[in-house]
Amino acid sequence: MTQTTTDRSPINTTNGGTMRGLIKHHAGEGLAFSDDRPIPTPGPREVRIRVKKVGICGTDRHIWEWDDWSANRIPVGIITGHEFVGHIDAVGSAVTQYEPGQRVSAEGHMTAGVDYNSRTGNAHIASDTSIFGIDRDGCFADYIVVPESNVWPVHPDIDDKYAAILDPLGNAVHTVMAAGVSAKTVLISGVGIIGLMAVTVAKAAGAARIYCTDINPPRLELAKKLGATEAFDARDSSWIKQVRADTYEGVDVLLEMSGAPAAMDQGFRALRNGGTAALLGLPARTVDFDFNAHIIFKGCTVLGINGRKMWDTWYQMEKLLLSGRLELDDIITHEFPIEDFEQAFKTMMSGEGIKVLMNL
Amino acid sequence: MTQTTTDRSPINTTNGGTMRGLIKHHAGEGLAFSDDRPIPTPGPREVRIRVKKVGICGTDRHIWEWDDWSANRIPVGIITGHEFVGHIDAVGSAVTQYEPGQRVSAEGHMTAGVDYNSRTGNAHIASDTSIFGIDRDGCFADYIVVPESNVWPVHPDIDDKYAAILDPLGNAVHTVMAAGVSAKTVLISGVGIIGLMAVTVAKAAGAARIYCTDINPPRLELAKKLGATEAFDARDSSWIKQVRADTYEGVDVLLEMSGAPAAMDQGFRALRNGGTAALLGLPARTVDFDFNAHIIFKGCTVLGINGRKMWDTWYQMEKLLLSGRLELDDIITHEFPIEDFEQAFKTMMSGEGIKVLMNL
Amino acid sequence: MTQTTTDRSPINTTNGGTMRGLIKHHAGEGLAFSDDRPIPTPGPREVRIRVKKVGICGTDRHIWEWDDWSANRIPVGIITGHEFVGHIDAVGSAVTQYEPGQRVSAEGHMTAGVDYNSRTGNAHIASDTSIFGIDRDGCFADYIVVPESNVWPVHPDIDDKYAAILDPLGNAVHTVMAAGVSAKTVLISGVGIIGLMAVTVAKAAGAARIYCTDINPPRLELAKKLGATEAFDARDSSWIKQVRADTYEGVDVLLEMSGAPAAMDQGFRALRNGGTAALLGLPARTVDFDFNAHIIFKGCTVLGINGRKMWDTWYQMEKLLLSGRLELDDIITHEFPIEDFEQAFKTMMSGEGIKVLMNL
Amino acid sequence: MTQTTTDRSPINTTNGGTMRGLIKHHAGEGLAFSDDRPIPTPGPREVRIRVKKVGICGTDRHIWEWDDWSANRIPVGIITGHEFVGHIDAVGSAVTQYEPGQRVSAEGHMTAGVDYNSRTGNAHIASDTSIFGIDRDGCFADYIVVPESNVWPVHPDIDDKYAAILDPLGNAVHTVMAAGVSAKTVLISGVGIIGLMAVTVAKAAGAARIYCTDINPPRLELAKKLGATEAFDARDSSWIKQVRADTYEGVDVLLEMSGAPAAMDQGFRALRNGGTAALLGLPARTVDFDFNAHIIFKGCTVLGINGRKMWDTWYQMEKLLLSGRLELDDIITHEFPIEDFEQAFKTMMSGEGIKVLMNL
Repeated sequence: MTQTTTDRSPINTTNGGTMRGLIKHHAGEGLAFSDDRPIPTPGPREVRIRVKKVGICGTDRHIWEWDDWSANRIPVGIITGHEFVGHIDAVGSAVTQYEPGQRVSAEGHMTAGVDYNSRTGNAHIASDTSIFGIDRDGCFADYIVVPESNVWPVHPDIDDKYAAILDPLGNAVHTVMAAGVSAKTVLISGVGIIGLMAVTVAKAAGAARIYCTDINPPRLELAKKLGATEAFDARDSSWIKQVRADTYEGVDVLLEMSGAPAAMDQGFRALRNGGTAALLGLPARTVDFDFNAHIIFKGCTVLGINGRKMWDTWYQMEKLLLSGRLELDDIITHEFPIEDFEQAFKTMMSGEGIKVLMNL
Repeated sequence: MTQTTTDRSPINTTNGGTMRGLIKHHAGEGLAFSDDRPIPTPGPREVRIRVKKVGICGTDRHIWEWDDWSANRIPVGIITGHEFVGHIDAVGSAVTQYEPGQRVSAEGHMTAGVDYNSRTGNAHIASDTSIFGIDRDGCFADYIVVPESNVWPVHPDIDDKYAAILDPLGNAVHTVMAAGVSAKTVLISGVGIIGLMAVTVAKAAGAARIYCTDINPPRLELAKKLGATEAFDARDSSWIKQVRADTYEGVDVLLEMSGAPAAMDQGFRALRNGGTAALLGLPARTVDFDFNAHIIFKGCTVLGINGRKMWDTWYQMEKLLLSGRLELDDIITHEFPIEDFEQAFKTMMSGEGIKVLMNL
Repeated sequence: MTQTTTDRSPINTTNGGTMRGLIKHHAGEGLAFSDDRPIPTPGPREVRIRVKKVGICGTDRHIWEWDDWSANRIPVGIITGHEFVGHIDAVGSAVTQYEPGQRVSAEGHMTAGVDYNSRTGNAHIASDTSIFGIDRDGCFADYIVVPESNVWPVHPDIDDKYAAILDPLGNAVHTVMAAGVSAKTVLISGVGIIGLMAVTVAKAAGAARIYCTDINPPRLELAKKLGATEAFDARDSSWIKQVRADTYEGVDVLLEMSGAPAAMDQGFRALRNGGTAALLGLPARTVDFDFNAHIIFKGCTVLGINGRKMWDTWYQMEKLLLSGRLELDDIITHEFPIEDFEQAFKTMMSGEGIKVLMNL
Repeated sequence: MTQTTTDRSPINTTNGGTMRGLIKHHAGEGLAFSDDRPIPTPGPREVRIRVKKVGICGTDRHIWEWDDWSANRIPVGIITGHEFVGHIDAVGSAVTQYEPGQRVSAEGHMTAGVDYNSRTGNAHIASDTSIFGIDRDGCFADYIVVPESNVWPVHPDIDDKYAAILDPLGNAVHTVMAAGVSAKTVLISGVGIIGLMAVTVAKAAGAARIYCTDINPPRLELAKKLGATEAFDARDSSWIKQVRADTYEGVDVLLEMSGAPAAMDQGFRALRNGGTAALLGLPARTVDFDFNAHIIFKGCTVLGINGRKMWDTWYQMEKLLLSGRLELDDIITHEFPIEDFEQAFKTMMSGEGIKVLMNL
């Protein structure tokens, strides 16, 4: 990984001016581009960031498509987006830790910092969490305002294109590190964007063997390129028998990235007694699940994974990125100017692209 | 707890003689008493134990009732029972660790000791487990033969009536210690035999507050007597709101002892984000479960609990029993001579008794 | 424990007024009382607290005596003291979480919140830590100003006399909980103030057996009253043999509270192979230590304990206090008005008192 | 790694015959070769193994040199050696798990299996441990007899030259895995045989960055070849400042492999607050150690490492070897026929060789 020159953009940052942004403009499909959105002013404990590069998340797709979840959650009129890198441009009056010019990303989960989990190192599961780009204005814009406590300073040796996707990469790192893969056999069920990231993360984090399953053959091929020992089409479940034979009656670790009930069932069948399953994929609805066979008789440990740990996951990501062991370039497939957002979303939603970035 | 005089019974132990035993004599309801069952001979690495006191387990009830599980698993003709204390009476030729006269109990889960879990301190979830009293002759008899490696020497300060129930007590201790309750708020859903034991174990192990739920009011009363801070009738779910208000939005630990889907749902709703759930109760069938709300968004840890750890759980039990903090006398409600086994089973199955012992 | 009426003191809180305080007035022995210390003004992210009750720490004694450590660390002229309870009286302009009237204590370790440990749930070992009462004005005064992020709201069911000593109690709780004592045999070497607190905390947290050592017989007696199973005079090391015989060749856990090299040596000899030692006591200088016998061959785990975890330890304390299981009343031996500070310190330094409080 | 054809040696295995062996023949320097040592007969629960390839350990060097430790421990007349691979040749009457023909290695630490640690998954620190090649006849001979419970079946895809050194590789794997290196910065102090193995193991197990120190420049060069990010000559301690600057004020993990007090001191200075130190190197005597600066104020975790976990470490080794990620070929520098043992030992003791093997 080469060091990046991260010159700050020469655009007008006068407070009170206007900026570009992608707006969820109505309760229906799509987003709208605006170039006269007011540049926001940071509160006393907030910073304003000049956004440079953003990533399109699966959640942004849901917001675009306006599914039930979006219709219930997203306030019409907000700027969307929550994966980005940029430079601090202005700081609030009570900000003590940052100053303009610093290259930063930010954790999207915001909390008041007063609940039990926020005060015990687990702010990622705080009860009062809100998320920028979902509950308030996000990063698909020239500027974003975030709480000082959500800022992550980006190491100078990390390239912008990686720094723009620390949010989803953090999901993968959180899952992999929570389960623990060092010198273990690992099954990753579902190699979408996060699943593919999990392959390269698991390899870098010391997994001894990585099996993947999915129903998308090209993604399975890519998983092998990124480090999977073997990749199976889940539509034929005979792989379970093979994996159990090649291991000690099952893998040590299951990383569930699909949310598909069939994948969960297969995954637990392929997990050895006493193994650990980390669940990141969200089932679309309740799942009819065999607790006896999958968890209780097996003596398994199951971990629910949500977001990224603040800030353990971010430090782990930094170390993994600096190690040079992460292979992300095949996952970041496209970049577009923000003005071409329709093409960017289409590329991502068609499956042609995997992680699609936009530049501002 | 007072020290027990554990005189060995003066009955005839001549090899080749006969003994009393409760036999699963036919593929239907009930057990049969026999007084001419041949006294078994230990193999080279086995010991023979003169049984003194036994406990009736919920599993024995299933075998009595001959439910589907029993019909599929139990070989007709075996002696049942797996909770006991006695004295070693004879040892096989290659036995090195024990000698006749020692007061012992035994772990019921037997393995060849060669699979991954047996070799890494987790023999309780070995893939080749069989259980005496279920898969081969058990302890409802004057003598039982068990592998040397399954023997547990009973500390002289532990009374026979407690030593006879180390197996179910071990289920409770395993669950409590796996979850970790020290200085934590704990919910125990289901206060049957093991659930009640879990109450006194959790209190002894340092739980700061213990909430219980069940649909059996007398058992809830007993739970309070044994140390529960509050005990709720689960048929009215309003307790969840109260518990969440009295804690930091939920208990730290859920010990699921019922296997009832409704109890699981309530329990997870009462568990705080980031909490730990240990599942011991076996649902009768698959459960329609909300993984998103209960595990993934919550960032919970779920532990499947099976049997007892060999031998961590047994050492923990010994220390807890010797601490004098366990209140088991209200749980051990009845004792009968083995000849009165029909009354013993009836007392247990009617709910009049909780833990019912038989003497030999 | 009964609920305390915590009426706010009716004294003058006008900003710009003066207040009482104990000042480290010169580079020598003693403290000076002042009644015209200016009442401090909170910064934007600080709160001002009207102090009600304070505890005298061993560190305050060092400051009084002006030993080498104090001479090197303490700025002459500061108000000392770091154990207290009081009510918030004024809040800075950017404070969001607290308001005047709340009854609070505070964590004494202050950090900028930007280093690795501060950002990963371990602020208690932040590299930039400073402590009020040591590095800047403390709580032996009518008012103290602390950062908002250091405030701990006191549960209404916790009495002021306990709330005033959460700092040292937190040392004991941190040590006990880091080592883990649930269903374990525990040795506490050194039963000074923190060691005695550790006895009652270990018992409440589920220790199965607690052994104590010290060279102060009355403190050993008190340790037994608080829950120690046995208490030994460390000047005769024959206790080690007894403890090893009564356990499985040593205790599971050593809580080292003395900092005495001889106690460390004895303690590790009494620890079983594979045991855990938590070290809180600070040796006066380097220690000639047998790493092979004590740690490496034994396969032990050794934990360095510093301060209190923010905020895990504080939540644990709250739960333990609310459980009603902590016996602190024999440890809190005296209370004085702040004006009688000389008598208070003398009582504490003579060993006549254990935990000595002062009221404001 | 290529699959090895592991033909069994065609030599005479008639019970009652004689065999070759290296004998500690007198209480002084050197070993003696014998070709008329009686072939041992396995007891009921033992197996006899036809040894094929052995490794010379640093301990064997001590035995050769007859230092104080050896003079106190080693019975004159025994066959030495404890690192080997071979095939089972005969099994005792009560052996159930193995049969002649299986390719195996064995764990050298033998216990009766009855103490606390043996029964709780920590037999490597059993109180009654004895070691073959040290306390009784070892593997520098055509045949060795070991307890059935000490046998490790070697995976067919693992080459004999690696299978012969599972014992020392296990020390490295145990140390690395106990500390946990996945996505962490790691310092290895001391790159002798085990230290060098630890470099490649740490890299394979997912260490993000590996720093090494030693006072032997060629070994430091080799450490870099095997995966160390940087390797420093410890005689100049300025590296500490650099490493602290390149990390978050110190490495996450220290693996102490030298036993040198100066290396321990440097290592702990280079460890961050809250870091973990795993100590494998044995200091020659007690160490004058700064517990306050190195452990207590830092809030560190220190792990004593002894032997290999039975059998977690062995499974981890197998997975790491099968992953193809371990680079051992530069560490295994020489092979000799057993008859050339003097040259083999000389090569190892001179430092010309690192891991030196002998073939039988």
